[in-house]
Amino acid sequence: MRDFLPAEKAIREHALGVIRTTFAAQGFDEIETPVMEDAARLHSGLGGDNEKLAFAVMKRGLGPADAAAAAESGDLLSLADLGLRFDLTVPLARFYATHRANLPTVFRAIQIAPVWRAERPQKGRFRQFMQCDIDIIGEPSALAEIELITATTAALDALGLTGTSVRINDRRILTALLRYWGVPAEQSERALITLDKLDKIGVDGVVAELATLGIDTTGVGETLRAIADAGWNLLDGDANGTDGAANGLDGDADAPAWLDQASYRDLLALRAALPGVDLVFDPTLVRGMGYYTGTIFEIAHPDLPYSLGGGGRYDGMIGRFLGTEVPACGFSIGFERIVELLAAESAADENAVVLIHEKDADPAALVALKGELVASGKRVRLERRTKNLKPLLERAAEARFGSFAFVGADATDAASLDFKPLTS
Amino acid sequence: MRDFLPAEKAIREHALGVIRTTFAAQGFDEIETPVMEDAARLHSGLGGDNEKLAFAVMKRGLGPADAAAAAESGDLLSLADLGLRFDLTVPLARFYATHRANLPTVFRAIQIAPVWRAERPQKGRFRQFMQCDIDIIGEPSALAEIELITATTAALDALGLTGTSVRINDRRILTALLRYWGVPAEQSERALITLDKLDKIGVDGVVAELATLGIDTTGVGETLRAIADAGWNLLDGDANGTDGAANGLDGDADAPAWLDQASYRDLLALRAALPGVDLVFDPTLVRGMGYYTGTIFEIAHPDLPYSLGGGGRYDGMIGRFLGTEVPACGFSIGFERIVELLAAESAADENAVVLIHEKDADPAALVALKGELVASGKRVRLERRTKNLKPLLERAAEARFGSFAFVGADATDAASLDFKPLTS
Repeated sequence: MRDFLPAEKAIREHALGVIRTTFAAQGFDEIETPVMEDAARLHSGLGGDNEKLAFAVMKRGLGPADAAAAAESGDLLSLADLGLRFDLTVPLARFYATHRANLPTVFRAIQIAPVWRAERPQKGRFRQFMQCDIDIIGEPSALAEIELITATTAALDALGLTGTSVRINDRRILTALLRYWGVPAEQSERALITLDKLDKIGVDGVVAELATLGIDTTGVGETLRAIADAGWNLLDGDANGTDGAANGLDGDADAPAWLDQASYRDLLALRAALPGVDLVFDPTLVRGMGYYTGTIFEIAHPDLPYSLGGGGRYDGMIGRFLGTEVPACGFSIGFERIVELLAAESAADENAVVLIHEKDADPAALVALKGELVASGKRVRLERRTKNLKPLLERAAEARFGSFAFVGADATDAASLDFKPLTS
Repeated sequence: MRDFLPAEKAIREHALGVIRTTFAAQGFDEIETPVMEDAARLHSGLGGDNEKLAFAVMKRGLGPADAAAAAESGDLLSLADLGLRFDLTVPLARFYATHRANLPTVFRAIQIAPVWRAERPQKGRFRQFMQCDIDIIGEPSALAEIELITATTAALDALGLTGTSVRINDRRILTALLRYWGVPAEQSERALITLDKLDKIGVDGVVAELATLGIDTTGVGETLRAIADAGWNLLDGDANGTDGAANGLDGDADAPAWLDQASYRDLLALRAALPGVDLVFDPTLVRGMGYYTGTIFEIAHPDLPYSLGGGGRYDGMIGRFLGTEVPACGFSIGFERIVELLAAESAADENAVVLIHEKDADPAALVALKGELVASGKRVRLERRTKNLKPLLERAAEARFGSFAFVGADATDAASLDFKPLTS
């Protein structure tokens, strides 16, 4: 778990503000849930492997008898009644079940909040990190996917992260692909976990690992190489993106036999509805979570080996606490990664100035001077003069202040201050 | 613990944004610490009574032997290594001890973050609530008080909460007052707790309760009534607020014998340095926390029986984890109370519009239409048409949307939409 110092915190809050404003303009509504949920709900099976990583919060007022009972039963979690959320999806399902009567028929939710996972510390993994999720609940049509992808790319654009593309696939295409290869249904999940490693272990690695699962890999390498040869993007085959004719659909003999054509047509329609988005069809895109039921997508950046976020349709899950099926689709921005990108590029704030004053300067005059500058739109940090000015100026530059000026003992008026630029 | 639905969450985020921007303009730097701190640090004595209210987070990977050991020792907290913070002051002290080398000599911190207390549920008390703190560390002079009060009143003004005043006192004035009454040093803390109830139990109640502590209450009622007769504001006695002559200081025979004159002169100087602030000297203001060492202050609103925030100087505390004394002064805004005030007054957002579309409207055309409006600065919520429109329109009005329009099946261009106002 990390502390954030001023320079980093400023970038985080700037990014959160931009994301929040963009999502709101796109008609999404922000909600908030408590960081603790009932332990039983956190461990209801909706969270997959993450459930094991939930921090458990002890019941209040426990005594030795409770500890003895836990020792006997071996169920240490009987001492906990609450836990810290490990994602924002379980809380969203609980929230929707509780408040459905007071929400729009189609509910477009924003959740921008931290989650916690008791992972072993390692580079790039944090035990507390921010998630920025948007979800559309109650919309079965592609309108949900279109709005989610539009809002997410708008947020990335507003952050200045240009050049991103959206890799897209459909779980039904993956299912058909596995059926084409003859993977038995009970092996599907394991096979998808292997296919998900394609980026890392390559075609030969996937074939070898599938073989160790006892799967007949005849044709697997051939299909994967054909997909790779198509530049991972079968949507590109069709310049106007409306009918897929150039990809051999509609009965053309060249249509790949493994391709689920109904789902593929949905993707072509999605591409037509998102003319401003660089949509890349990748039939080998898996995404880890087992709860996805339809489209899945991921944000790719040309300079980065990892995705900047992802999501998909998960129609089975939100209704679980209600006992009914509710269509749902979500997109999650990888906030921690985006902040790293922004931190590398952030510039000084020209409106932010440092006033360096003598130790014995009159406080009232200093604050009046500061107030004058604040009223004119400046952000103003006071700093007491130190013998060695270098560390002071370096810290100010690192915190993205744009300039500094010395204030005399009499704290002169703002107009007579001589501002010099800070350089880092 | 509470869920926040869209209308309430929007007000909260608006208020947080205004507070954050105002504090930043005043030269304060926002930081963030993890919500969990080491249990040992949370229970180090800095948190007073709140330590007992900390939620405890269980160690990971515990087994029956650990539970048995806890049963035997009776120390259930041995099963916890972390806890949720109950305030932002203990984390600030820990943060400052860790990062001092990378912070400005005088550090002006913003912390806007939730805290948790395992209180029994009751009206107005929450187990998770937001705190908005500013603290100035390393500044021994009144510059700290002046900047804190300026920043806090600027934030309240920016939120539209006008008419507030700041009640101010000094712990040294209270100490002198108790000495004047002859309260033994070992009874001081108990006596201050009683005096803190003056608003609720009145002068006679305070005298009676002090008597039950075995304190000789000769003169107590007389002093308190004299203070009340002065309108709770001895600063008012001095029209220009610079020398206190009208209050009988500087050897005048009318100077109240119980008044610590050095501290009083500091308050007069503070008033002179804050010409825009309605500063009210209340010599009976106590503020609960035992760690205050100098000035203490509280925000009062003419319509409210409770304060909207408070703070003071606490020179002994921030340095505790460093083993040195570090001057510190802080101000905390009562965010939850402020949100209640704002919620009662919030108006519709004229830029927020609802587009009501047919169920079978073309998603691509709808999203293009929405994009056109978003590009023109609107916030746009799509809603599928329902047979009974009333609940839909009521929900939109409650969420502060300003107007709505129907979209035909062909999703016409933005210019031809006929917007009607939403009224709540």
